[in-house]
Amino acid sequence: MRADSDLFLVEGPHMVEELLQWRPEDAEEVFALAEWVDPRDSRRQAALAPPVVRIQPEELAAMSCQHAPNQVLALVRKRRALPPVAPRGALTLALDAVRDPGNLGTIIRTADWFGIRNVVCSPDCAELHNPKVVQATMGGIFRIELSYTDLAAWLPTTGMPVFCTTLDGSALQDIPSPQEGVIVIGNEARGVSDAVRALATQRVTIPRYGHAESLNASVAAGIVMAALCQGRSR
Amino acid sequence: MRADSDLFLVEGPHMVEELLQWRPEDAEEVFALAEWVDPRDSRRQAALAPPVVRIQPEELAAMSCQHAPNQVLALVRKRRALPPVAPRGALTLALDAVRDPGNLGTIIRTADWFGIRNVVCSPDCAELHNPKVVQATMGGIFRIELSYTDLAAWLPTTGMPVFCTTLDGSALQDIPSPQEGVIVIGNEARGVSDAVRALATQRVTIPRYGHAESLNASVAAGIVMAALCQGRSR
Repeated sequence: MRADSDLFLVEGPHMVEELLQWRPEDAEEVFALAEWVDPRDSRRQAALAPPVVRIQPEELAAMSCQHAPNQVLALVRKRRALPPVAPRGALTLALDAVRDPGNLGTIIRTADWFGIRNVVCSPDCAELHNPKVVQATMGGIFRIELSYTDLAAWLPTTGMPVFCTTLDGSALQDIPSPQEGVIVIGNEARGVSDAVRALATQRVTIPRYGHAESLNASVAAGIVMAALCQGRSR
Repeated sequence: MRADSDLFLVEGPHMVEELLQWRPEDAEEVFALAEWVDPRDSRRQAALAPPVVRIQPEELAAMSCQHAPNQVLALVRKRRALPPVAPRGALTLALDAVRDPGNLGTIIRTADWFGIRNVVCSPDCAELHNPKVVQATMGGIFRIELSYTDLAAWLPTTGMPVFCTTLDGSALQDIPSPQEGVIVIGNEARGVSDAVRALATQRVTIPRYGHAESLNASVAAGIVMAALCQGRSR
């Protein structure tokens, strides 16, 4: 299951159900305890693309990356890397060196909540198929198109407004929700890199009323997405 | 350093500097590598209330709760538990069964950013002095007043409007930023409990435009705080 494999692991009933609902064709094999297999509708079971292998709790524990393995896991084929896209009429998220796997996964989950379909990562972001990223997406990984590219080279090719979160921008609530554009979120410690910040058409700041030096990166990303996606249709 | 101790541990240069700036009187003892001690201004050093003990890397590793111990740690006296408060003219945060230590710490950090001074937790929230909570606050623990109480019994005694995050409330952006009140954030899986939700004067929902089933609790808390604290003075 390492980065050089063509497969990645998804774990637990919620993630496996999301897989079977959204990307059943990507599922290579499902391994499950009897308690997960038995209550499932047998017709639905028969219609499943991937074979389901019953295993024992000690086998699950041996295959799992979790501290507390939970009933079922699946081996999933990685999709071919796609070129980065920022579709017209939509908001796209760009992540500049988001290194922590939990943050990357949580940001994908939040993008999925707000209807953002495309996430474009700099090459030094965490790796999408890292088990901590996968699990933190809570299923978002099956719905979001994610790609890796050099953001400073790519952003000018999009022809889109670029909203860059910085400490010296306009207050978030003063910026009208855009029809389209790319929202850039920076590194946990250093923020957005100079090369990318220079491409911003709008710098955006989350106003601070207290004393904390910074916000957690996935919290900041959530606040910016909530404000800029405001009032979109489903 | 267990829950029954009168002391708790804070780790790393950032956390220890926050301690020495905001609550030096609570510091019992600081243990540090030469690389942390030596570059410090010697007058400032002399003025320090707590004694600084030079230790070797292997001693730091033995005392630390971190995977990668970072130069310095401090033993800090716990403060006496305070009664819950919801001051007039301010926003207070109430947490209903926020169980994950990382979420509790991150929510305290966010409250500290938005100028919320008081956080009131149900007794089944994570424990404030858990090392994962402490570190995730990024210093917020030294500035926020946190207490534990039965929220359903306490909320009616505050005489304050109660903003409760639920899945069936008014869209967040349609709610004017209140002058005062209590913002309630619920459990990671179950949301706000029925008993507390029944006390809401305003139910608040973060609009969803995509497919994710839910948001991470600390992301949701951040989005709600950002919207309801909007336009406050520092």
